[in-house]
Amino acid sequence: MPELPEMAKGQLAGQAGALPAEHIRDVFVRYTELFSDCDDDGVAALYAEDAVLRDPVTGPAVQGRQAIRDWYQMAFDAMDCPMDMRLEGAVRVAGNLAAAALVVRTHSNGQPLRVDTLDVMQFNDDGLIAAMDAYFGPSNYHMD
Amino acid sequence: MPELPEMAKGQLAGQAGALPAEHIRDVFVRYTELFSDCDDDGVAALYAEDAVLRDPVTGPAVQGRQAIRDWYQMAFDAMDCPMDMRLEGAVRVAGNLAAAALVVRTHSNGQPLRVDTLDVMQFNDDGLIAAMDAYFGPSNYHMD
Repeated sequence: MPELPEMAKGQLAGQAGALPAEHIRDVFVRYTELFSDCDDDGVAALYAEDAVLRDPVTGPAVQGRQAIRDWYQMAFDAMDCPMDMRLEGAVRVAGNLAAAALVVRTHSNGQPLRVDTLDVMQFNDDGLIAAMDAYFGPSNYHMD
Repeated sequence: MPELPEMAKGQLAGQAGALPAEHIRDVFVRYTELFSDCDDDGVAALYAEDAVLRDPVTGPAVQGRQAIRDWYQMAFDAMDCPMDMRLEGAVRVAGNLAAAALVVRTHSNGQPLRVDTLDVMQFNDDGLIAAMDAYFGPSNYHMD
């Protein structure tokens, strides 16, 4: 990591004492692997007991790890498993908040389908996901 | 845009009636151009009169278009203008919310500097930016 410019030192002072960025990146990577494998239990274990999920961010909030596990089970049941979810570019880590662009490749009605999504996650002090919002809409679905 | 899978139709129903995704993408692209040119007046004109900016998201809120203009002026004065800000991947559009990964290439102390950032924007019904949060931290600074 380079010496930060003077302006950045001031801007980013509020992020001191947060989780290691490496841990947060690892959770994003593990999330893509478990999501690709449609592993609802594994994905849910990344979340805090009282976590809140909004997927998409415009949808209703799913509250609590058990409800979140059930939500992923329902979602995976409706999809063509396994899938291929990958990070698109680096995870941006801002203290205990982080965000990353993701690309999901799957099939729908026998046709290849790509969905460009983007997850914003808030972490608690134990390194678990306390909140996750997924940003995507109809314009992010592509037949390839 | 392909026919959405059944599950997506339900998930995304809440996004009906929002701004055209094309408008939101255009604002992101215009933002990168104006930011690259260090055009504080131009960037500020993309924001609503009562907009709120947090850049980074962990920092203090800057409230109102005039304060936001002054904030960009201060930021550009501290940077090596012009810069090169580009989208990294597609803009993810979820109703009047949207998010995109961005890469800024500039110089600091005469050395090349790359900053990977990611902006989450909320738009008002007039198509102006009502809120913007920028996600980045020390781990997103690179000497190349």
